Amino acid sequence: MTEPAQAKVDMEKLVSLCRRRGFIFPSSEIYGGLSSCWDYGPLGVELKRNVKDAWWRAVVQQRDDMVGLDSSILMHPQVWRASGHVEGFSDPLVECKGCHLRWRSDELEGDKCPECGGELTEPRLFNLMFKTFIGPVEDEASVVYLRPETAQGIFVNFENVLNTTRKRLPFGIAQTGKSFRNEVTTGNFIFRSREFEQMEIEYFVKPGTDKQWFEYWVEERLNWYASLGIKRENLKLRPHAKEELAHYARECSDINYLFPMGWAELEGIANRGDFDLVQHAASSGKGLSYYDEEAKEHIVPYIIEPSAGVDRTFLAVLCDAYDEDEAEGEKRVLLHLHPDLAPIKAAVLPLSRKEHLASFAQEIYADLRQQWMVQYDDAQSIGRRYRRQDEIGTPFCVTVDFESLEDKQVTIRERDSLRQIRVPIESLKSTLAAKLAGEDLFVLPEGGKIWKE
Amino acid sequence: MTEPAQAKVDMEKLVSLCRRRGFIFPSSEIYGGLSSCWDYGPLGVELKRNVKDAWWRAVVQQRDDMVGLDSSILMHPQVWRASGHVEGFSDPLVECKGCHLRWRSDELEGDKCPECGGELTEPRLFNLMFKTFIGPVEDEASVVYLRPETAQGIFVNFENVLNTTRKRLPFGIAQTGKSFRNEVTTGNFIFRSREFEQMEIEYFVKPGTDKQWFEYWVEERLNWYASLGIKRENLKLRPHAKEELAHYARECSDINYLFPMGWAELEGIANRGDFDLVQHAASSGKGLSYYDEEAKEHIVPYIIEPSAGVDRTFLAVLCDAYDEDEAEGEKRVLLHLHPDLAPIKAAVLPLSRKEHLASFAQEIYADLRQQWMVQYDDAQSIGRRYRRQDEIGTPFCVTVDFESLEDKQVTIRERDSLRQIRVPIESLKSTLAAKLAGEDLFVLPEGGKIWKE
Repeated sequence: MTEPAQAKVDMEKLVSLCRRRGFIFPSSEIYGGLSSCWDYGPLGVELKRNVKDAWWRAVVQQRDDMVGLDSSILMHPQVWRASGHVEGFSDPLVECKGCHLRWRSDELEGDKCPECGGELTEPRLFNLMFKTFIGPVEDEASVVYLRPETAQGIFVNFENVLNTTRKRLPFGIAQTGKSFRNEVTTGNFIFRSREFEQMEIEYFVKPGTDKQWFEYWVEERLNWYASLGIKRENLKLRPHAKEELAHYARECSDINYLFPMGWAELEGIANRGDFDLVQHAASSGKGLSYYDEEAKEHIVPYIIEPSAGVDRTFLAVLCDAYDEDEAEGEKRVLLHLHPDLAPIKAAVLPLSRKEHLASFAQEIYADLRQQWMVQYDDAQSIGRRYRRQDEIGTPFCVTVDFESLEDKQVTIRERDSLRQIRVPIESLKSTLAAKLAGEDLFVLPEGGKIWKE
Repeated sequence: MTEPAQAKVDMEKLVSLCRRRGFIFPSSEIYGGLSSCWDYGPLGVELKRNVKDAWWRAVVQQRDDMVGLDSSILMHPQVWRASGHVEGFSDPLVECKGCHLRWRSDELEGDKCPECGGELTEPRLFNLMFKTFIGPVEDEASVVYLRPETAQGIFVNFENVLNTTRKRLPFGIAQTGKSFRNEVTTGNFIFRSREFEQMEIEYFVKPGTDKQWFEYWVEERLNWYASLGIKRENLKLRPHAKEELAHYARECSDINYLFPMGWAELEGIANRGDFDLVQHAASSGKGLSYYDEEAKEHIVPYIIEPSAGVDRTFLAVLCDAYDEDEAEGEKRVLLHLHPDLAPIKAAVLPLSRKEHLASFAQEIYADLRQQWMVQYDDAQSIGRRYRRQDEIGTPFCVTVDFESLEDKQVTIRERDSLRQIRVPIESLKSTLAAKLAGEDLFVLPEGGKIWKE
């Protein structure tokens, strides 16, 4: 976060847009909120679903070497002992003897409280796992943890997946899901919160091929962000130095994004070696290995882990899409969202609320809704309605006017280019489908014409 | 659960199929499992995603009067005091003084331990909410709960959604997500577990119209299950008697399904009146109301709540789809899954592993995978491969034979009817798309012919 580069939008503007348009609300807001927990509103939930679906499509559906998984948040406590989390997943915490605020001592520059200058206690290690109790008695025997990462659910299912899918190396297991970390310091909107969602891949390879697969995945993941329209200059690879590698990692690179507060981690890609399978094999007494048909021997695969945050990707997508320009004679805020990610794919806008036009437009709306998330808006001027859709990243507006009643044609307006095209209603769906799939707007459907440029 | 009717499949068979084919594994199985937690395997995660997507499409995307939400699992503790959960969400628990097993006293028939006949303690109330601690100090001030239902996240966001979407009554808010209940008694596979996933709608209506909307939603939800192919005779409505209504409910009906263990709740539909908004308004000091433009007054909407379980729907879908018959001269197990729900939409099966045929078939596979979840299987006889796909509910198999190399045609085999049709490769995708959308297999594409009946 020491680079001079600047993001295009500041966090305040983004938070305000998210709040105002229903992307993200503070959790339990009527009760004053809950520290660093967030709720995704009507538009946010769609964008978040689209991010996760795009990831799933790219890493599970479209690949031959990957399968999905959905493991539970509550796991056997032994999992977290074997993984090293019970012992070592902690931050050093200090408390001010004067004002009693708490701080992470490894993030402090001096040895006095940054708030009041008071004296600090000696640091003590504070485990970041949330704990709870299964069953009616709160004793040590029934302690379980909320998972701090989804990855362990994949490792402990390695054999189950291998036996039921008969996959051969190299292959991967992918999952999305909530994780929880009782962070001492949170903040930067949804960037670091105590409850968050992950998209994790554990990719199992033959030892010796791990270095090349590590590099493959770094490239692959960078390409994925670019495929969602994120500008390459806002992404930067940060390889970890040897001394900062986690205990389980042989090599690690972060994909950083230029957020409003500076460059920060979007995804981490690690070569975990055989650490996880060896640990769980030793701890469970099960032989977690793979029979190599060629070499006729059991081997313990190495693991490459591309681990991304859903909330961080959401934030990066919004930052990257944010723009301000002039359109149709007015200033506008707009989100250049990739059509796959846009919460609303099209808006149907009747030029008037008059009964016969409204019912005609409603029919078109009802038909499009069968296939996509679509909005209907008949409030205020057409310009105001375009502005509202631009601001939430809707790629296409479908305007229905009085001429539409006669010629059975409607106007499609494109968010980014502002160009308009008039198409027969019977080809509206196929035209929108083609455009949402990235085809050029100006390949005219039969009977269509460019309206204005 | 007192009816004589019998489900077609017993639970043991279903659990075994789920385990063997990778639908569901016991959580943390290498560590002996974690009581009543389950992991969804490669096929299970796809089926579960399909169930949730089908629900979202029907209740959010395709409706004009509904929006989505994704609120956090950790909420302000005051939410659960206002809702009545801290005070009243508990079961009466007794412990055997002899063997120390614990029971729900309201489920016991006698007053002796069912296990050893020992004497039982007096019942004490045991709260079903899991609790944990935010921040580094475990004291009462920092206690938070894992939500026992997603509904409260909707109620506390009522105003946020109203203000950002400008919806008018009647309208609904829908969300899916994990909930947690520290149940004393769990069991029946994924039917009752401590971590589970919900699909909840809170539908806000004008007081006085609540009875008609309650009836509307009962009908609508029954139709939804039928639309997924669940047989109507396995669904039964069970209206609650006055004396069994929850304290917040004016009326309630369960949609019960004939599970292997008997009739049990799949979904509950409740008329909650104004209970929730009144409680949260009083507790938060915010005026949670709606301005009625016609009557020119603020009103507190009534709420109709159709609340379904993802895991229970998953289980019902599997039970309902399970079948055994004879096919192609062999006994087979098959799942008559609706194409929208089937984890794998099609399997590509080359008749031989010979290089030129294999690469030809792989090309077809790679192309289909861009659009759908598809498997490639070249192991063992074609009969064995059909059996494997039937058992996981794959609606279509695409067989590639040596003639395909010459005539550029492949055979599509339909899971349920066993009919086969031969189609040109260039119309394979459109044919599959039409069939997956429910069109008749025997509307032949150009150049296609029925192979055998």
